[in-house]
Amino acid sequence: MRLRNKPWARDYMAEHPDILLAEPEKMMNGWHTLFGNGNPIHIEVGSGMGQFIIGMAVANPDVNYIGIEHFDNVIVSALEKAVEAEKPSNLRLFRANGMDLAKIFHKGEIDRVYLNFSDPWPKTRNAKRRLTHETFLKLYEEVLAEGGEIHFKTDNRLLFEYSLVSMSQYGMKLGFVSLDLHAEMPEDNIMTEYEEKFSAKGHPIYRLESHFTNS
Amino acid sequence: MRLRNKPWARDYMAEHPDILLAEPEKMMNGWHTLFGNGNPIHIEVGSGMGQFIIGMAVANPDVNYIGIEHFDNVIVSALEKAVEAEKPSNLRLFRANGMDLAKIFHKGEIDRVYLNFSDPWPKTRNAKRRLTHETFLKLYEEVLAEGGEIHFKTDNRLLFEYSLVSMSQYGMKLGFVSLDLHAEMPEDNIMTEYEEKFSAKGHPIYRLESHFTNS
Repeated sequence: MRLRNKPWARDYMAEHPDILLAEPEKMMNGWHTLFGNGNPIHIEVGSGMGQFIIGMAVANPDVNYIGIEHFDNVIVSALEKAVEAEKPSNLRLFRANGMDLAKIFHKGEIDRVYLNFSDPWPKTRNAKRRLTHETFLKLYEEVLAEGGEIHFKTDNRLLFEYSLVSMSQYGMKLGFVSLDLHAEMPEDNIMTEYEEKFSAKGHPIYRLESHFTNS
Repeated sequence: MRLRNKPWARDYMAEHPDILLAEPEKMMNGWHTLFGNGNPIHIEVGSGMGQFIIGMAVANPDVNYIGIEHFDNVIVSALEKAVEAEKPSNLRLFRANGMDLAKIFHKGEIDRVYLNFSDPWPKTRNAKRRLTHETFLKLYEEVLAEGGEIHFKTDNRLLFEYSLVSMSQYGMKLGFVSLDLHAEMPEDNIMTEYEEKFSAKGHPIYRLESHFTNS
């Protein structure tokens, strides 16, 4: 754990095991049972400080949401927000690396993957770390149900260009593309912390929806 | 012919049958014979005033180029430019509607289709007129050789968004995407008249390369 600047965080995290799961891999094939319903499950890989996933959970009670974040010192902020929002029953958080998705979710257990303002890893030698690299696309395909979608937004032009090509080369199809999301802001758009910051500076926000095909 | 403002144009066009073909459909399956070589053939659908296709012909003598434009009063400007450029032997122009491509080219006779700053037809009811509508994609597929590509650029965001989705839904794959072509201007980029005008105003220029797949 990297919590040097937040000495209180370890205890705080341990106090909320009902919403911040300590051992998510134990829930494999049991996520619908955990939520106590058959509603769709949408996950956010790299949920950061949680504004998006918690906002979605509050706005859409008929969908289950899981925020996944690699860094303890970030996820503790999401936990604070979730507690402030009175712990929506359709929300869970846990700490994990995106590479471990297939150890945590059974094939078909997930209906949608959100990627928001993912680290662009701009150097070519780090391309395999981008969350839209084929290594990750393969993992999403492994856990998504048939017809499941990836919804991705970013302000990073190079990452978006890369992702369009990467998904297409993988055999995914695009269902929606916006190259300036805020030009025709959809009413149901829930902004991430980064999105508020970058769109306020006038940067265009890019967004796509894509899905895997059977071919 | 719509040449009311250019009364001299009809005669001028008739004087250059070697570069402005009057009956292109008669060349079906004979285009390589016409050019006198086996070099690849690249066409531009909607070649407008010709700056792009003529610039490409001059810059790339080992490729054959054909500019196709629907309007006589526009293609006559391209003809003037071609005459000024001393009629490159690897260039032809003709007037036709994009819908007639498969009556003019045999299956596999073409290696690349360029679409540059095509009419965006912004109203949804006119979507079928967009040169990246599936009706046109089907025609390009009919005339392109295996591995043949579409290279498309535009400053129109909505048309580019539409085209990404349309090509993807058709089953095409993206090989390259730039959402700000002039940010890392490739040395070999030849600008169209529109591109000069719009990029000078600071509009981003979007560009993609795509190809059909066998699946």
